[in-house]
Amino acid sequence: MLTLYDYLDSGNGYKIRLLFALLKRPYRWVELDILAGATRVPEFLAKNPNGRIPTLQLEDGTYLAESDAILWYLAEGTRFIPADPIGRALVLQWMFFEQYSHEPYVATPRFIRRHLPEDSPRYAELPVRLKQGRAALAVMETHLTTRRFFVAERYTIADMALYAYTHVAGEGGLELAPYPHVTAWLARVAAESGHVPLTERP
Amino acid sequence: MLTLYDYLDSGNGYKIRLLFALLKRPYRWVELDILAGATRVPEFLAKNPNGRIPTLQLEDGTYLAESDAILWYLAEGTRFIPADPIGRALVLQWMFFEQYSHEPYVATPRFIRRHLPEDSPRYAELPVRLKQGRAALAVMETHLTTRRFFVAERYTIADMALYAYTHVAGEGGLELAPYPHVTAWLARVAAESGHVPLTERP
Repeated sequence: MLTLYDYLDSGNGYKIRLLFALLKRPYRWVELDILAGATRVPEFLAKNPNGRIPTLQLEDGTYLAESDAILWYLAEGTRFIPADPIGRALVLQWMFFEQYSHEPYVATPRFIRRHLPEDSPRYAELPVRLKQGRAALAVMETHLTTRRFFVAERYTIADMALYAYTHVAGEGGLELAPYPHVTAWLARVAAESGHVPLTERP
Repeated sequence: MLTLYDYLDSGNGYKIRLLFALLKRPYRWVELDILAGATRVPEFLAKNPNGRIPTLQLEDGTYLAESDAILWYLAEGTRFIPADPIGRALVLQWMFFEQYSHEPYVATPRFIRRHLPEDSPRYAELPVRLKQGRAALAVMETHLTTRRFFVAERYTIADMALYAYTHVAGEGGLELAPYPHVTAWLARVAAESGHVPLTERP
Protein backbone atom coordinates (compact mmCIF):
# COMPACT_ATOMS: atom_id res chain seq x y z
CA MET A 1 0.00 0.00 0.00
CA LEU A 2 1.17 3.54 -0.74
CA THR A 3 2.21 5.73 2.20
CA LEU A 4 1.63 9.49 2.13
CA TYR A 5 3.76 11.68 4.41
CA ASP A 6 1.68 14.80 4.91
CA TYR A 7 0.48 17.63 7.19
CA LEU A 8 -3.28 18.16 7.49
CA ASP A 9 -3.31 21.94 6.93
CA SER A 10 -1.11 21.70 3.79
CA GLY A 11 -2.89 22.47 0.52
CA ASN A 12 -0.11 20.65 -1.32
CA GLY A 13 -0.87 17.54 0.74
CA TYR A 14 -4.60 18.06 0.30
CA LYS A 15 -4.23 17.75 -3.49
CA ILE A 16 -3.14 14.14 -3.00
CA ARG A 17 -5.80 13.35 -0.38
CA LEU A 18 -8.44 14.78 -2.74
CA LEU A 19 -7.28 12.62 -5.66
CA PHE A 20 -7.10 9.48 -3.50
CA ALA A 21 -10.68 10.20 -2.35
CA LEU A 22 -11.95 10.74 -5.91
CA LEU A 23 -10.27 7.50 -7.02
CA LYS A 24 -11.62 5.69 -3.91
CA ARG A 25 -8.10 4.34 -3.43
CA PRO A 26 -6.95 3.34 0.08
CA TYR A 27 -3.55 4.49 1.38
CA ARG A 28 -1.59 4.81 4.58
CA TRP A 29 -1.42 8.37 5.96
CA VAL A 30 1.43 9.59 8.17
CA GLU A 31 1.15 13.11 9.54
CA LEU A 32 4.37 15.00 10.31
CA ASP A 33 4.48 18.16 12.42
CA ILE A 34 6.20 20.46 9.93
CA LEU A 35 6.07 23.37 12.40
CA ALA A 36 8.15 21.34 14.85
CA GLY A 37 10.70 20.53 12.12
CA ALA A 38 9.68 16.90 11.59
CA THR A 39 10.57 17.14 7.87
CA ARG A 40 14.08 18.46 8.56
CA VAL A 41 15.37 15.55 10.64
CA PRO A 42 17.82 13.01 9.16
CA GLU A 43 15.20 10.23 9.12
CA PHE A 44 12.90 12.22 6.85
CA LEU A 45 15.68 13.86 4.79
CA ALA A 46 16.72 10.32 3.83
CA LYS A 47 13.26 9.99 2.24
CA ASN A 48 13.18 13.45 0.64
CA PRO A 49 16.44 15.47 0.71
CA ASN A 50 14.40 18.63 0.03
CA GLY A 51 12.66 18.14 3.40
CA ARG A 52 9.08 18.75 2.30
CA ILE A 53 5.70 17.12 2.45
CA PRO A 54 3.81 15.70 0.65
CA THR A 55 6.12 12.78 -0.07
CA LEU A 56 4.69 9.47 -1.28
CA GLN A 57 6.35 6.12 -0.72
CA LEU A 58 5.58 3.81 -3.64
CA GLU A 59 5.11 0.06 -3.37
CA ASP A 60 8.69 -0.65 -4.54
CA GLY A 61 10.03 1.64 -1.79
CA THR A 62 10.77 4.65 -4.05
CA TYR A 63 9.99 8.04 -2.51
CA LEU A 64 8.23 10.53 -4.80
CA ALA A 65 8.10 14.22 -3.84
CA GLU A 66 6.46 17.36 -5.29
CA SER A 67 2.68 17.43 -5.04
CA ASP A 68 1.99 17.91 -8.74
CA ALA A 69 4.36 15.07 -9.75
CA ILE A 70 2.53 12.83 -7.26
CA LEU A 71 -0.82 13.86 -8.79
CA TRP A 72 0.50 12.93 -12.25
CA TYR A 73 1.80 9.54 -11.04
CA LEU A 74 -1.50 8.62 -9.38
CA ALA A 75 -3.80 9.99 -12.11
CA GLU A 76 -1.98 8.55 -15.15
CA GLY A 77 -4.41 6.28 -16.99
CA THR A 78 -7.49 7.65 -15.17
CA ARG A 79 -10.14 10.15 -16.31
CA PHE A 80 -8.27 12.95 -14.57
CA ILE A 81 -5.53 13.30 -17.26
CA PRO A 82 -6.47 13.76 -20.94
CA ALA A 83 -5.23 11.16 -23.43
CA ASP A 84 -4.09 13.55 -26.19
CA PRO A 85 -0.58 15.09 -26.13
CA ILE A 86 -1.74 18.71 -26.22
CA GLY A 87 -4.28 18.21 -23.42
CA ARG A 88 -1.62 16.46 -21.33
CA ALA A 89 0.87 19.28 -21.90
CA LEU A 90 -1.74 21.90 -20.95
CA VAL A 91 -2.42 20.04 -17.68
CA LEU A 92 1.31 20.28 -16.95
CA GLN A 93 1.36 23.95 -18.02
CA TRP A 94 -1.27 24.82 -15.41
CA MET A 95 0.44 22.75 -12.73
CA PHE A 96 3.74 24.57 -13.37
CA PHE A 97 1.83 27.86 -13.32
CA GLU A 98 0.44 26.77 -9.96
CA GLN A 99 3.84 26.05 -8.44
CA TYR A 100 5.68 29.06 -9.90
CA SER A 101 3.14 31.88 -10.23
CA HIS A 102 0.42 30.93 -7.73
CA GLU A 103 1.57 28.88 -4.73
CA PRO A 104 4.25 31.30 -3.43
CA TYR A 105 1.73 34.17 -3.53
CA VAL A 106 -1.53 32.47 -2.56
CA ALA A 107 -0.36 29.68 -0.21
CA THR A 108 2.58 31.38 1.50
CA PRO A 109 0.54 34.38 2.82
CA ARG A 110 -1.93 31.87 4.26
CA PHE A 111 0.94 29.99 5.94
CA ILE A 112 2.39 33.21 7.37
CA ARG A 113 -0.97 34.32 8.78
CA ARG A 114 -2.02 30.95 10.17
CA HIS A 115 1.21 29.59 11.52
CA LEU A 116 3.72 32.37 12.31
CA PRO A 117 3.63 34.63 15.41
CA GLU A 118 2.39 38.16 14.79
CA ASP A 119 5.85 39.63 15.37
CA SER A 120 7.48 37.45 12.69
CA PRO A 121 9.53 39.52 10.20
CA ARG A 122 7.94 37.44 7.45
CA TYR A 123 4.74 39.54 7.71
CA ALA A 124 6.71 42.19 5.78
CA GLU A 125 6.54 39.87 2.74
CA LEU A 126 2.75 40.06 2.57
CA PRO A 127 2.16 43.17 0.39
CA VAL A 128 4.39 41.97 -2.47
CA ARG A 129 3.14 38.39 -2.23
CA LEU A 130 -0.53 39.42 -2.21
CA LYS A 131 0.00 41.67 -5.24
CA GLN A 132 1.45 38.70 -7.13
CA GLY A 133 -1.40 36.54 -5.80
CA ARG A 134 -3.94 38.93 -7.34
CA ALA A 135 -2.04 38.73 -10.63
CA ALA A 136 -2.30 34.91 -10.55
CA LEU A 137 -6.03 35.07 -9.77
CA ALA A 138 -6.49 37.52 -12.68
CA VAL A 139 -4.82 35.05 -15.08
CA MET A 140 -7.19 32.32 -13.82
CA GLU A 141 -10.21 34.63 -14.13
CA THR A 142 -9.34 35.46 -17.76
CA HIS A 143 -8.94 31.78 -18.61
CA LEU A 144 -12.16 30.69 -16.88
CA THR A 145 -14.29 33.42 -18.47
CA THR A 146 -14.90 31.09 -21.42
CA ARG A 147 -14.29 27.69 -19.77
CA ARG A 148 -15.79 25.41 -17.12
CA PHE A 149 -12.49 23.75 -16.15
CA PHE A 150 -8.82 24.55 -16.89
CA VAL A 151 -8.19 21.96 -19.60
CA ALA A 152 -10.39 20.04 -22.06
CA GLU A 153 -13.65 21.24 -20.43
CA ARG A 154 -13.48 18.54 -17.80
CA TYR A 155 -12.19 18.06 -14.27
CA THR A 156 -8.46 17.16 -14.31
CA ILE A 157 -5.55 17.20 -11.89
CA ALA A 158 -4.83 20.76 -13.09
CA ASP A 159 -8.08 21.82 -11.39
CA MET A 160 -7.15 19.89 -8.23
CA ALA A 161 -3.71 21.54 -8.13
CA LEU A 162 -5.19 25.02 -8.47
CA TYR A 163 -8.22 24.42 -6.24
CA ALA A 164 -6.12 23.39 -3.22
CA TYR A 165 -4.93 26.88 -2.25
CA THR A 166 -7.36 29.03 -4.26
CA HIS A 167 -10.40 27.96 -2.25
CA VAL A 168 -8.70 29.09 0.98
CA ALA A 169 -7.03 32.18 -0.50
CA GLY A 170 -9.10 34.35 1.85
CA GLU A 171 -7.26 32.86 4.82
CA GLY A 172 -4.11 34.54 3.48
CA GLY A 173 -5.82 37.84 2.80
CA LEU A 174 -6.88 37.47 -0.86
CA GLU A 175 -10.54 38.29 -1.44
CA LEU A 176 -12.16 36.22 -4.18
CA ALA A 177 -15.14 38.53 -4.83
CA PRO A 178 -13.41 40.33 -7.74
CA TYR A 179 -13.04 36.97 -9.55
CA PRO A 180 -16.57 35.67 -10.23
CA HIS A 181 -15.51 33.05 -12.80
CA VAL A 182 -12.93 31.69 -10.37
CA THR A 183 -15.60 31.55 -7.66
CA ALA A 184 -18.02 29.67 -9.96
CA TRP A 185 -15.26 27.20 -10.88
CA LEU A 186 -14.47 26.59 -7.18
CA ALA A 187 -18.14 25.67 -6.69
CA ARG A 188 -18.03 23.27 -9.67
CA VAL A 189 -14.96 21.52 -8.25
CA ALA A 190 -16.53 21.22 -4.77
CA ALA A 191 -19.68 19.72 -6.34
CA GLU A 192 -17.77 16.83 -7.95
CA SER A 193 -18.81 13.41 -6.71
CA GLY A 194 -16.40 12.14 -4.06
CA HIS A 195 -15.08 15.61 -3.10
CA VAL A 196 -13.58 15.95 0.38
CA PRO A 197 -12.66 19.14 2.29
CA LEU A 198 -9.10 20.21 3.11
CA THR A 199 -9.64 19.74 6.84
CA GLU A 200 -10.92 16.15 6.61
CA ARG A 201 -8.51 13.75 8.24
CA PRO A 202 -8.14 10.63 6.02
CA MET B 1 6.32 24.41 -38.03
CA LEU B 2 6.43 25.19 -34.31
CA THR B 3 7.12 28.80 -33.26
CA LEU B 4 9.04 29.54 -30.05
CA TYR B 5 8.60 32.97 -28.44
CA ASP B 6 11.75 33.48 -26.43
CA TYR B 7 14.50 35.79 -25.15
CA LEU B 8 18.12 34.78 -25.78
CA ASP B 9 19.44 35.32 -22.23
CA SER B 10 16.57 33.32 -20.65
CA GLY B 11 17.57 29.98 -19.16
CA ASN B 12 13.94 28.90 -19.32
CA GLY B 13 13.95 29.59 -23.07
CA TYR B 14 17.35 27.91 -23.43
CA LYS B 15 15.90 24.63 -22.11
CA ILE B 16 13.69 24.47 -25.21
CA ARG B 17 16.44 25.56 -27.64
CA LEU B 18 18.70 22.85 -26.16
CA LEU B 19 16.07 20.13 -26.60
CA PHE B 20 15.27 21.26 -30.18
CA ALA B 21 19.03 21.08 -30.95
CA LEU B 22 19.42 17.62 -29.40
CA LEU B 23 16.40 16.39 -31.38
CA LYS B 24 17.73 18.12 -34.54
CA ARG B 25 14.21 19.50 -35.00
CA PRO B 26 13.76 22.77 -36.93
CA TYR B 27 11.53 25.52 -35.54
CA ARG B 28 10.76 29.18 -35.98
CA TRP B 29 12.33 31.44 -33.34
CA VAL B 30 10.86 34.83 -32.37
CA GLU B 31 12.82 36.88 -29.87
CA LEU B 32 10.89 39.33 -27.66
CA ASP B 33 12.55 42.10 -25.66
CA ILE B 34 11.26 41.19 -22.21
CA LEU B 35 13.12 44.12 -20.62
CA ALA B 36 11.15 46.53 -22.84
CA GLY B 37 7.85 44.88 -21.80
CA ALA B 38 7.23 43.00 -25.07
CA THR B 39 5.56 40.11 -23.19
CA ARG B 40 3.13 42.43 -21.35
CA VAL B 41 1.43 43.98 -24.40
CA PRO B 42 -2.10 42.89 -25.41
CA GLU B 43 -0.86 41.10 -28.54
CA PHE B 44 1.35 38.76 -26.50
CA LEU B 45 -1.03 38.45 -23.53
CA ALA B 46 -3.56 37.03 -26.00
CA LYS B 47 -1.05 34.21 -26.59
CA ASN B 48 -0.06 33.73 -22.93
CA PRO B 49 -2.16 35.59 -20.32
CA ASN B 50 0.66 35.07 -17.81
CA GLY B 51 2.91 37.25 -20.00
CA ARG B 52 6.01 35.08 -19.98
CA ILE B 53 8.44 33.47 -22.37
CA PRO B 54 9.08 30.77 -23.41
CA THR B 55 5.74 30.22 -25.10
CA LEU B 56 5.43 27.70 -27.93
CA GLN B 57 2.81 27.91 -30.66
CA LEU B 58 1.86 24.40 -31.77
CA GLU B 59 0.92 23.44 -35.31
CA ASP B 60 -2.83 23.57 -34.54
CA GLY B 61 -2.42 27.13 -33.23
CA THR B 62 -2.53 26.25 -29.50
CA TYR B 63 -0.14 28.24 -27.32
CA LEU B 64 1.75 26.23 -24.70
CA ALA B 65 3.54 28.05 -21.85
CA GLU B 66 5.80 27.01 -18.95
CA SER B 67 9.26 25.81 -19.98
CA ASP B 68 9.07 22.41 -18.30
CA ALA B 69 5.61 21.65 -19.78
CA ILE B 70 7.04 22.52 -23.21
CA LEU B 71 10.00 20.17 -22.59
CA TRP B 72 7.55 17.38 -21.72
CA TYR B 73 5.44 17.99 -24.84
CA LEU B 74 8.44 17.95 -27.16
CA ALA B 75 10.28 15.04 -25.51
CA GLU B 76 7.31 12.66 -25.09
CA GLY B 77 8.11 9.48 -27.04
CA THR B 78 11.84 10.29 -27.35
CA ARG B 79 14.86 8.96 -25.41
CA PHE B 80 14.71 11.99 -23.10
CA ILE B 81 11.72 10.74 -21.04
CA PRO B 82 11.75 7.26 -19.43
CA ALA B 83 9.01 4.83 -20.44
CA ASP B 84 8.18 3.48 -16.96
CA PRO B 85 5.67 5.29 -14.69
CA ILE B 86 8.07 5.78 -11.76
CA GLY B 87 10.85 7.13 -13.97
CA ARG B 88 8.39 9.52 -15.63
CA ALA B 89 7.11 10.74 -12.26
CA LEU B 90 10.67 11.30 -11.00
CA VAL B 91 11.43 13.42 -14.09
CA LEU B 92 8.40 15.55 -13.20
CA GLN B 93 9.47 15.63 -9.53
CA TRP B 94 12.83 17.18 -10.46
CA MET B 95 11.22 19.62 -12.89
CA PHE B 96 8.82 20.82 -10.16
CA PHE B 97 11.80 21.04 -7.77
CA GLU B 98 13.50 23.18 -10.41
CA GLN B 99 10.61 25.62 -10.75
CA TYR B 100 9.74 25.86 -7.04
CA SER B 101 12.98 25.38 -5.08
CA HIS B 102 15.69 26.30 -7.61
CA GLU B 103 14.68 28.80 -10.30
CA PRO B 104 13.57 31.64 -7.95
CA TYR B 105 16.86 31.37 -6.04
CA VAL B 106 19.38 30.53 -8.78
CA ALA B 107 17.89 32.27 -11.84
CA THR B 108 16.39 35.38 -10.24
CA PRO B 109 19.69 36.60 -8.64
CA ARG B 110 21.29 36.22 -12.07
CA PHE B 111 18.47 38.28 -13.63
CA ILE B 112 18.81 40.99 -10.96
CA ARG B 113 22.58 41.26 -11.40
CA ARG B 114 22.59 41.15 -15.20
CA HIS B 115 19.56 43.21 -16.08
CA LEU B 116 18.61 45.62 -13.27
CA PRO B 117 20.36 48.94 -12.50
CA GLU B 118 22.65 48.92 -9.48
CA ASP B 119 20.29 51.14 -7.49
CA SER B 120 17.30 48.80 -7.95
CA PRO B 121 15.63 47.94 -4.61
CA ARG B 122 15.52 44.33 -5.79
CA TYR B 123 19.22 43.94 -4.87
CA ALA B 124 17.97 43.70 -1.28
CA GLU B 125 16.43 40.32 -2.19
CA LEU B 126 19.82 38.77 -2.96
CA PRO B 127 20.95 37.47 0.49
CA VAL B 128 17.75 35.48 1.13
CA ARG B 129 17.56 34.23 -2.46
CA LEU B 130 21.22 33.13 -2.52
CA LYS B 131 20.80 31.28 0.78
CA GLN B 132 17.90 29.34 -0.73
CA GLY B 133 19.94 28.82 -3.90
CA ARG B 134 22.70 27.18 -1.86
CA ALA B 135 20.06 24.94 -0.26
CA ALA B 136 18.86 23.86 -3.72
CA LEU B 137 22.43 23.16 -4.87
CA ALA B 138 23.01 21.10 -1.70
CA VAL B 139 19.96 18.94 -2.50
CA MET B 140 21.33 18.39 -6.02
CA GLU B 141 24.82 17.61 -4.66
CA THR B 142 23.40 14.97 -2.29
CA HIS B 143 21.41 13.35 -5.10
CA LEU B 144 24.31 13.35 -7.58
CA THR B 145 26.80 11.88 -5.11
CA THR B 146 25.68 8.41 -6.19
CA ARG B 147 24.28 9.15 -9.66
CA ARG B 148 25.46 10.28 -13.11
CA PHE B 149 22.15 11.94 -14.06
CA PHE B 150 19.02 12.92 -12.11
CA VAL B 151 16.76 10.05 -13.18
CA ALA B 152 17.32 6.51 -14.48
CA GLU B 153 21.09 7.04 -14.92
CA ARG B 154 20.60 8.69 -18.29
CA TYR B 155 20.21 12.16 -19.76
CA THR B 156 16.56 13.28 -19.55
CA ILE B 157 14.65 16.56 -19.69
CA ALA B 158 15.05 16.75 -15.88
CA ASP B 159 18.77 17.31 -16.46
CA MET B 160 18.05 19.92 -19.16
CA ALA B 161 15.65 21.77 -16.84
CA LEU B 162 18.21 21.86 -14.01
CA TYR B 163 21.25 22.52 -16.23
CA ALA B 164 19.79 25.70 -17.75
CA TYR B 165 20.32 27.95 -14.74
CA THR B 166 22.77 25.85 -12.70
CA HIS B 167 25.59 26.17 -15.23
CA VAL B 168 25.36 29.98 -15.05
CA ALA B 169 24.67 30.16 -11.28
CA GLY B 170 27.96 32.05 -10.83
CA GLU B 171 26.53 34.96 -12.82
CA GLY B 172 24.03 35.44 -9.99
CA GLY B 173 26.65 35.09 -7.25
CA LEU B 174 26.48 31.38 -6.44
CA GLU B 175 29.87 29.68 -6.46
CA LEU B 176 29.79 26.08 -7.64
CA ALA B 177 33.14 25.00 -6.15
CA PRO B 178 31.51 23.56 -2.97
CA TYR B 179 29.43 21.20 -5.12
CA PRO B 180 31.88 18.90 -6.96
CA HIS B 181 29.26 16.32 -7.98
CA VAL B 182 27.09 19.07 -9.45
CA THR B 183 30.12 20.40 -11.32
CA ALA B 184 30.95 16.94 -12.73
CA TRP B 185 27.31 16.50 -13.81
CA LEU B 186 27.37 19.90 -15.59
CA ALA B 187 30.39 18.67 -17.57
CA ARG B 188 28.58 15.43 -18.48
CA VAL B 189 25.57 17.38 -19.77
CA ALA B 190 27.77 19.76 -21.80
CA ALA B 191 29.58 16.77 -23.36
CA GLU B 192 26.37 15.26 -24.76
CA SER B 193 26.30 15.02 -28.55
CA GLY B 194 24.38 17.93 -30.05
CA HIS B 195 24.80 20.23 -27.04
CA VAL B 196 24.52 23.98 -27.69
CA PRO B 197 25.43 26.88 -25.37
CA LEU B 198 22.89 29.28 -23.81
CA THR B 199 24.17 32.22 -25.82
CA GLU B 200 23.88 30.55 -29.23
CA ARG B 201 21.24 32.23 -31.34
CA PRO B 202 19.17 29.55 -33.14
